[in-house]
Amino acid sequence: MSSNLGTLFRVSTFGESHGVGLGCIIDGCPSGIKIEESAIQSFLNRRRPGQNEFTTPRGELDTCEILSGVENSVTLGTPIAIIVRNQDKKANDYQDINQIFRPGHADYTTFKKYGTSPSSGGGRASARETIGRVAAAAVAKAYVQSKIPNAEIIGWVDRIYDIQANVTTNSITFNEVEASLIRCPDKNAEEKMKEKILEAKTEGDSLGGVVRCIARNIPAGLGEPVFDKLEAELAKAMLSLPAVRSFEIGDGLASTYLKGSENNDAFQLNESGAVVTQSNKSGGIQGGISNGMPILISVGFKPVSTIFKEQNTVTKELKEISFKAKSGRHDPCVLPRAVPLVESMFWLVLADHLLRQFSLNPKFLIE
Amino acid sequence: MSSNLGTLFRVSTFGESHGVGLGCIIDGCPSGIKIEESAIQSFLNRRRPGQNEFTTPRGELDTCEILSGVENSVTLGTPIAIIVRNQDKKANDYQDINQIFRPGHADYTTFKKYGTSPSSGGGRASARETIGRVAAAAVAKAYVQSKIPNAEIIGWVDRIYDIQANVTTNSITFNEVEASLIRCPDKNAEEKMKEKILEAKTEGDSLGGVVRCIARNIPAGLGEPVFDKLEAELAKAMLSLPAVRSFEIGDGLASTYLKGSENNDAFQLNESGAVVTQSNKSGGIQGGISNGMPILISVGFKPVSTIFKEQNTVTKELKEISFKAKSGRHDPCVLPRAVPLVESMFWLVLADHLLRQFSLNPKFLIE
Amino acid sequence: MSSNLGTLFRVSTFGESHGVGLGCIIDGCPSGIKIEESAIQSFLNRRRPGQNEFTTPRGELDTCEILSGVENSVTLGTPIAIIVRNQDKKANDYQDINQIFRPGHADYTTFKKYGTSPSSGGGRASARETIGRVAAAAVAKAYVQSKIPNAEIIGWVDRIYDIQANVTTNSITFNEVEASLIRCPDKNAEEKMKEKILEAKTEGDSLGGVVRCIARNIPAGLGEPVFDKLEAELAKAMLSLPAVRSFEIGDGLASTYLKGSENNDAFQLNESGAVVTQSNKSGGIQGGISNGMPILISVGFKPVSTIFKEQNTVTKELKEISFKAKSGRHDPCVLPRAVPLVESMFWLVLADHLLRQFSLNPKFLIE
Amino acid sequence: MSSNLGTLFRVSTFGESHGVGLGCIIDGCPSGIKIEESAIQSFLNRRRPGQNEFTTPRGELDTCEILSGVENSVTLGTPIAIIVRNQDKKANDYQDINQIFRPGHADYTTFKKYGTSPSSGGGRASARETIGRVAAAAVAKAYVQSKIPNAEIIGWVDRIYDIQANVTTNSITFNEVEASLIRCPDKNAEEKMKEKILEAKTEGDSLGGVVRCIARNIPAGLGEPVFDKLEAELAKAMLSLPAVRSFEIGDGLASTYLKGSENNDAFQLNESGAVVTQSNKSGGIQGGISNGMPILISVGFKPVSTIFKEQNTVTKELKEISFKAKSGRHDPCVLPRAVPLVESMFWLVLADHLLRQFSLNPKFLIE
Repeated sequence: MSSNLGTLFRVSTFGESHGVGLGCIIDGCPSGIKIEESAIQSFLNRRRPGQNEFTTPRGELDTCEILSGVENSVTLGTPIAIIVRNQDKKANDYQDINQIFRPGHADYTTFKKYGTSPSSGGGRASARETIGRVAAAAVAKAYVQSKIPNAEIIGWVDRIYDIQANVTTNSITFNEVEASLIRCPDKNAEEKMKEKILEAKTEGDSLGGVVRCIARNIPAGLGEPVFDKLEAELAKAMLSLPAVRSFEIGDGLASTYLKGSENNDAFQLNESGAVVTQSNKSGGIQGGISNGMPILISVGFKPVSTIFKEQNTVTKELKEISFKAKSGRHDPCVLPRAVPLVESMFWLVLADHLLRQFSLNPKFLIE
Repeated sequence: MSSNLGTLFRVSTFGESHGVGLGCIIDGCPSGIKIEESAIQSFLNRRRPGQNEFTTPRGELDTCEILSGVENSVTLGTPIAIIVRNQDKKANDYQDINQIFRPGHADYTTFKKYGTSPSSGGGRASARETIGRVAAAAVAKAYVQSKIPNAEIIGWVDRIYDIQANVTTNSITFNEVEASLIRCPDKNAEEKMKEKILEAKTEGDSLGGVVRCIARNIPAGLGEPVFDKLEAELAKAMLSLPAVRSFEIGDGLASTYLKGSENNDAFQLNESGAVVTQSNKSGGIQGGISNGMPILISVGFKPVSTIFKEQNTVTKELKEISFKAKSGRHDPCVLPRAVPLVESMFWLVLADHLLRQFSLNPKFLIE
Repeated sequence: MSSNLGTLFRVSTFGESHGVGLGCIIDGCPSGIKIEESAIQSFLNRRRPGQNEFTTPRGELDTCEILSGVENSVTLGTPIAIIVRNQDKKANDYQDINQIFRPGHADYTTFKKYGTSPSSGGGRASARETIGRVAAAAVAKAYVQSKIPNAEIIGWVDRIYDIQANVTTNSITFNEVEASLIRCPDKNAEEKMKEKILEAKTEGDSLGGVVRCIARNIPAGLGEPVFDKLEAELAKAMLSLPAVRSFEIGDGLASTYLKGSENNDAFQLNESGAVVTQSNKSGGIQGGISNGMPILISVGFKPVSTIFKEQNTVTKELKEISFKAKSGRHDPCVLPRAVPLVESMFWLVLADHLLRQFSLNPKFLIE
Repeated sequence: MSSNLGTLFRVSTFGESHGVGLGCIIDGCPSGIKIEESAIQSFLNRRRPGQNEFTTPRGELDTCEILSGVENSVTLGTPIAIIVRNQDKKANDYQDINQIFRPGHADYTTFKKYGTSPSSGGGRASARETIGRVAAAAVAKAYVQSKIPNAEIIGWVDRIYDIQANVTTNSITFNEVEASLIRCPDKNAEEKMKEKILEAKTEGDSLGGVVRCIARNIPAGLGEPVFDKLEAELAKAMLSLPAVRSFEIGDGLASTYLKGSENNDAFQLNESGAVVTQSNKSGGIQGGISNGMPILISVGFKPVSTIFKEQNTVTKELKEISFKAKSGRHDPCVLPRAVPLVESMFWLVLADHLLRQFSLNPKFLIE
């Protein structure tokens, strides 16, 4: 459906950008999982805007409230409902743009689909819609780590505009990334990226780029061989994020320039006698199923559509006009804040496939 | 689930590469749709191997039989089951590779997931698994065109290895593509690609590349605003195909190198007074919903894993060995045969979202 | 899943009896449907306890708040989230029963399934869980009536214990039922039922019975021919209500005592030339699909498990004990309050199948 | 959807009564389950008509063929497709009835829903549609028994017309039932039932009745607490069978005539110290979840609609006529052949919920 994700770890989200609030129901999370409200809040804080000069000034606290499913910080096995109330909803910021179809935005397509549209702001097509996903992902992470304690997912800004970071995927750490205001662990690139962002901000323009993300210590056997391949589910999850234009698994497009003899990851035994691959061009997945190596993805984000330059467009009354956005609170570059979103979608997909794998093989992770 | 796709136009596929046969059930196709068995056969013929020197010599006829759901070439509204029996199943071709985990293949991950594996060949992780999808897509196309007669989907080989075709997406035609043995409509590139493929074949190696695909005359309003965004569903559908490594919507990665002011597609009115966009960098989708412009995707395929060169790997008994594939029937480059697969997945996604849209708005396409 | 219902009109509920609150997300409701918060409140008020001497004294107002999906009393097409906060949660009322498995209750099975249980009260296995369903049903009704303005669903108490009401199903009206404190429109039976209820209340015992429910002006063509038969979906919906023990469609068990020649509903033409049936023993459904006649169901409720008499049971520490419930707020007979629950589930099923039918045939209700 | 059942043990069926064949795909069955084709055939043989004077003379062998998913009698974890080809399809038997809406049949509702109908016979609304379910159930049973070796499900004819059998549910055995041509283990009742059936056959009339069914050794913890209650899923499964009019769990309607103090099943410890209930009026389920006691259901079947007496009805051209079925092959009483259908649906529901429970608690059945 429109706002449901997952087969067994099932998330339903709700909420408009300028309504009462946003949130989610997580249905299918097993009982007995420890989850503090603070862990959810901490996930939400990472996506929160307004934290520095590189992001939108919309400065909401986005405080979450668990409505059900958790008692004494332990899941009951019942649906977990979480809500974040909107505080800073200046609907009239948007009055001037309510009658036009903003280029690159969902205004026109929403209008064509629903015949109506929220009175202000982007409704569901706002980045605030991701609040429910991120809250759910905190629970997904708690569940996955209850079964695989050393499972970790680390995303980072790999490129902004034409500034490419140089990152060693094998050794990158979460703290390294979080130490950077724009979540790029390559200090040299980071400086250039910051300059580019401030430059675009000054110009009233916006920048895109690429977020990469790695999942480590994920056991072999997760995923499905046909339609629900692990990479297919990840692709859907990532493309469901606002502004995403591309998805690559493993070496992605680079692999398409190689010959089979160069691209195949040879199997070998590691020092413990376990099967590993020499290279990891396939990004930890073969035939839709994880092989135990790190899972690596790349997600491309377009420059956000909201810019503060003169643009041509059409009104709801079908008149061509020229307009320039006067107000609103928007990031010149969403990449830094997209990192926790990519990680969140990754946790949701893994939690779902872990539950699915246990149904097929209850001895999974034991054998 | 593992082998189900779609919310309303629901396809379940079955079949192993070397078992009795392969096929599908299509559940949810409305009644009264005209569909000839020959139209399904024609879809299957386009994916069939062994048709020229550029593809695998496995030369099956892949004859389909409709088992249910269609009477006098019209759908009954009941599930449509279609089967293609395997004819050319030389299981012993595969005996030598049955005890090893072939690099790049799903042998290892299938074994880890299921604890068992088909006695020969790749089981579900074979390109033959796509037979069920292609048969279903013929029905999907018939349904979509019953509602939108001029809807069309055209895929083509856009790049093989480093040979990039030069294609005008606006004017490309289906016949132009089909006139090329390797489904590349750019004559110059085609010749170079053929050389590359034969070179790789001689070397016992394989090549990857990119398939692009355009859907024209798709009305605005298809898709969903959150998890089931049209591009997200397309991404999943494409990544569920064997050997796919990347997905791009519209200008994809190229968009991530632009500024918002360069990337936004300005709305304007065309000569009929309808809303169109000046450029189409977003590939016909905004906020997960089609905007009426052509929908354009790019799908990257890795070089296939089966090569005829010495490779290192590990046996099921966990011994490291070196091996060289002696036999088997495999394409040096799957791109030409991937074109109908990409088109097929596209039809399946569109059929599903068209049914979904009618449930929300029965007057869709009328108003 | 556990707490999701519906294929297209999709309801997810959440909330424990003694937690923060209860509610639902409705996903898939089309845009442009008029729905006042007061209409939802009015649905909730009908299921609300504590309104007279025949029901539990738990006297909460159960005030609903729409969190999303509705603006200016019109649906946006986005998920509609509704919450009712718990006010009167005397968790310590339940302290004495927290360590035992109450006979007839879900305490034991919940404990066996989840290994844990809410600290007080019945958690999800409480009648309060139905709040989310009833709120969703108000929206379902608004949607169905937007397409079929004269569609109506009327439930009533048909039997309590051994007191059978005499009701003419063809002419019964909603107001007639609501005029009765215990929702039994047969004045004679009503008086005897009231006596029986007060008698049981005095004894500290409880009573069961049967709710019947009729849906009128439902067009022919709703439902599916195999697993999702309309009566099958209704059966599931009704059996998912707490305390339900039986479901009958049409004349139900009575039909099983007839011969085919007595039970078949002969088709004929009515004065307008439309196809109707002479009798309606099948309850408006044939082969899983509505035939345009009134749809009639009977739902049997057991006497509720909470009684105030000495009972034998077992503690969580597996000791046999005898206990007598001292407090808690419970109905001696749930039948009167079960009427809106049965109606609610009926609206939810109809809304879902109406959406499904429009996807198959957008001209449904027009032709 | 129309022809899909199950969340994880997912069955899709196909096939018209007079088309090429009928069958199913089972998706989600784990790998490594032993299943002989003969076990599936044996399930199909039990539902097969034409075996004695009490059933329809349509005497097909209904030979099944496994198309995929099983190798060397062990499941691969891939979709299991099974087909039964129609042999005895005398379509012209039905020519005389093709233009009328037979009373009690799905002809009219199918026509209203689909605007078309199979040229002969009942299409999907035929009892032959159950072939796919029964084949799938053989696999479901194999899966459930691989986890719970002593799990058993036994159905029997409990009543035909007004002849009530006297059966001790605790001790009834499968062989006892199968020893009876009409699957009634009470010898006295059996004789009277046979007489009634032959009497109805002579009259050209038909009889209904009740099938009861018990599942033994099902562990506590299967089911879900809200919409997917075990009894709700069973109710849906049973009402999805042709001709079913009622469903009861445990003592069903009889419970509604008791007081809570009479109806509650007191918990106690058995000789092994395990929690059991003294009585089993609730039929092994509380709050939607199994409690470890036998699960007992009752399913009411109407007398089949096909009779050989003069009846009034309407033609497709909307003319009132009187007709008398001249031919066709139909049971005067489906109850005996309904027994394996009820058992089959029970196995399918249990298999699905067992998979679901393992996903939530992989240690289920171990702890």
